[in-house]
Amino acid sequence: MSLLDYFKITKVSSASVAKERLQILVAHERSFKNQPSYLPQLQKELLQVIQKYVNVGNDSISVNFEQDEHQETLEVNIVLPDKPR
Amino acid sequence: MSLLDYFKITKVSSASVAKERLQILVAHERSFKNQPSYLPQLQKELLQVIQKYVNVGNDSISVNFEQDEHQETLEVNIVLPDKPR
Repeated sequence: MSLLDYFKITKVSSASVAKERLQILVAHERSFKNQPSYLPQLQKELLQVIQKYVNVGNDSISVNFEQDEHQETLEVNIVLPDKPR
Repeated sequence: MSLLDYFKITKVSSASVAKERLQILVAHERSFKNQPSYLPQLQKELLQVIQKYVNVGNDSISVNFEQDEHQETLEVNIVLPDKPR
């Protein structure tokens, strides 16, 4: 299953919800274990870019960051306002 | 299953490959069907942000964009160079 298929599955299950949503995922497979992570800083800049396109406040954005030895994953979920900008 | 679980599954299956990778996904659930898409432009700016952190040329980046009536999905796969910047 590709990741795009995953989005198709979740789309069906959330079809009854009228809210417009934007979901961003960043996965970093690391081979250099002691390398400092740049994802938290990258996250800030990604949000700045997105806020140029969609009119959302920080309270409409939820961020989930997970990290283990081999991988870091950043998940950003944004509920968009009812009217397009 | 959450999307983060999906990344955990793919991590195991790709563990034998030593290359460091960065994967970005953007899914936009749309409720306004005739709204113009901003994902292609957003994609350009996201890549500009990412290239500040990782030293990759355009030939290491593959982009997949899918669109239907209800959802747009942008997938960016980056193979990172062997040495960290």
